[in-house]
Amino acid sequence: MSDYNKHDAVLGIDIGGTNTKYGLVTPDGKLIHKGSCPTNSGKPISALFKNILRTVKKVKKDLNIIGIGIGAPNANYFNGYIESPPNLKWGTVNVKKELKKLISCPVALTNDANAGAIGEMIFGNGKGINDFIFITLGTGLGSGLIVDGKLVYGHDGFAGEIGHVIVKENGRLCGCGRKGCLETYVSAPGLKRTAFEILSDLNCESLLTKIPYEKLTAKNIFEAAAAKDKVAMLAFEKTGEILGKALANSIAYLSPKAIFLFGGLVEAGDLLFKPVKKYMNANTLNIMKNKVTIMPSGLDEGSAAVLGAAALIINELEKLKLK
Amino acid sequence: MSDYNKHDAVLGIDIGGTNTKYGLVTPDGKLIHKGSCPTNSGKPISALFKNILRTVKKVKKDLNIIGIGIGAPNANYFNGYIESPPNLKWGTVNVKKELKKLISCPVALTNDANAGAIGEMIFGNGKGINDFIFITLGTGLGSGLIVDGKLVYGHDGFAGEIGHVIVKENGRLCGCGRKGCLETYVSAPGLKRTAFEILSDLNCESLLTKIPYEKLTAKNIFEAAAAKDKVAMLAFEKTGEILGKALANSIAYLSPKAIFLFGGLVEAGDLLFKPVKKYMNANTLNIMKNKVTIMPSGLDEGSAAVLGAAALIINELEKLKLK
Repeated sequence: MSDYNKHDAVLGIDIGGTNTKYGLVTPDGKLIHKGSCPTNSGKPISALFKNILRTVKKVKKDLNIIGIGIGAPNANYFNGYIESPPNLKWGTVNVKKELKKLISCPVALTNDANAGAIGEMIFGNGKGINDFIFITLGTGLGSGLIVDGKLVYGHDGFAGEIGHVIVKENGRLCGCGRKGCLETYVSAPGLKRTAFEILSDLNCESLLTKIPYEKLTAKNIFEAAAAKDKVAMLAFEKTGEILGKALANSIAYLSPKAIFLFGGLVEAGDLLFKPVKKYMNANTLNIMKNKVTIMPSGLDEGSAAVLGAAALIINELEKLKLK
Repeated sequence: MSDYNKHDAVLGIDIGGTNTKYGLVTPDGKLIHKGSCPTNSGKPISALFKNILRTVKKVKKDLNIIGIGIGAPNANYFNGYIESPPNLKWGTVNVKKELKKLISCPVALTNDANAGAIGEMIFGNGKGINDFIFITLGTGLGSGLIVDGKLVYGHDGFAGEIGHVIVKENGRLCGCGRKGCLETYVSAPGLKRTAFEILSDLNCESLLTKIPYEKLTAKNIFEAAAAKDKVAMLAFEKTGEILGKALANSIAYLSPKAIFLFGGLVEAGDLLFKPVKKYMNANTLNIMKNKVTIMPSGLDEGSAAVLGAAALIINELEKLKLK
């Protein structure tokens, strides 16, 4: 990365349903400025981009933006579109074309979990590891697969949806319309559903009986588990078991060197990791057993999305140099 | 591939528990000679290689062997070893080193399903398709994953074991020692187990009641199903259902353009493909639905293993040229 100019930086943008975060990142991964603004998808996407570009140019006057990376729901790496995500009002929008009207530099986009995986590879614990799986546990379960040092996009850009592997026939109803997807069990809402399932099953005393369904958060369950609440502890155990078994299957597919877990749930530490490791190892095929490291992501929760988006375009710029 | 000499050929070797097949293949994929001999793993592996090399040199005197590709159980692409497969007596053996003593040319090895996937990519229906899954249905279920035009090896060379994805908790006992692996349901023995399960369940008349367990073959079940035997037809339906659902999950991982099925069971045609397609499409995530072609392999059953091994080394020679 030695042939960059000292004023060069990439712009990483993470578009969310409500807010959009952005940051200027040097080619070697230093976040030199970050900000955020409302996404406001009621207005055209060009308004959002104009706003961000105006702001960063004001803050860093000397700066030369050499590329823009974007993480967004339903963002398609191959065609440069964001394709009608449910939580954004733009419908299907040609992001690359819109940005080209405003600035002349390479642009790349993909979904946030894929951007996170590239962030992990370039700036996080995935440095120097050619084969790993990145999993983000939030309101859903997102994943990005790194095979031989490259992100797996699949033929259409949509590969890496481990959260939508069906792990239980006729299982829990998923937001995708099907039943039994991994993310209905392993995610913040999944943990809550499991806690309530255990409550209904055991009908016992628990700190969680005082909190209505719509108000119960993963944090409540974590705090209850830390206070040795039986239901909360069992909820983590069950969540870890389901994730561990699912990852044993992931290993049969890809035989990765490592698996990195990212997101709020990871803060539960051993409550989650202990059962995950136990059930993952117990269910892994012999020739692959005890070879896979599973650990928290090396990305900082606050800036991971922006760093991931930045890493995506840095990775593309490196590819262009090789050509 | 224009810079090969007209006398150049690669040697493809498929090592099986009992017999070893081999063939001379031109760089553009013409099989110009094939043969077979007993594997005889009671003797050193060098004896097998000496025998094959002597024979092919006798048959094609002008020939220049520019590379050797080998498909074998537990063959490790990265270190060049065959690692103690249960059906061969060599233990762990350094194949590359043994061959180097006999001939000076590039050598590559991998397991037979992986070799088959590369064969499909170079000589079969996978030509021009960058992302596909190759599945071989025989005494087990083997698979090879092609991502972005390259075989997925994983960090240790053992990736692509879809046959050992656990599809049913506490399911059927598998040869690997675990329970519920896909290949215990979807393979020639898996089909038989399903037929007997259905027989025990329905306790009805069937052509299959006349054949003892140890003698019942997939071919018997196919013939019975062709004669509209209810148990046999249900056995194919159930096998297709389980494979279709498993492939829907494979699609969530890799979003391939195509899935190719290879092996004896594929000859059952619609008996297998109809339920596979039905359950695969019904269980695929919306954004990936109806995008994946599933069809029989384009490789001829008789020479696929040898062509696959040849394709493996042709692929390596092409990579060397790019360097």
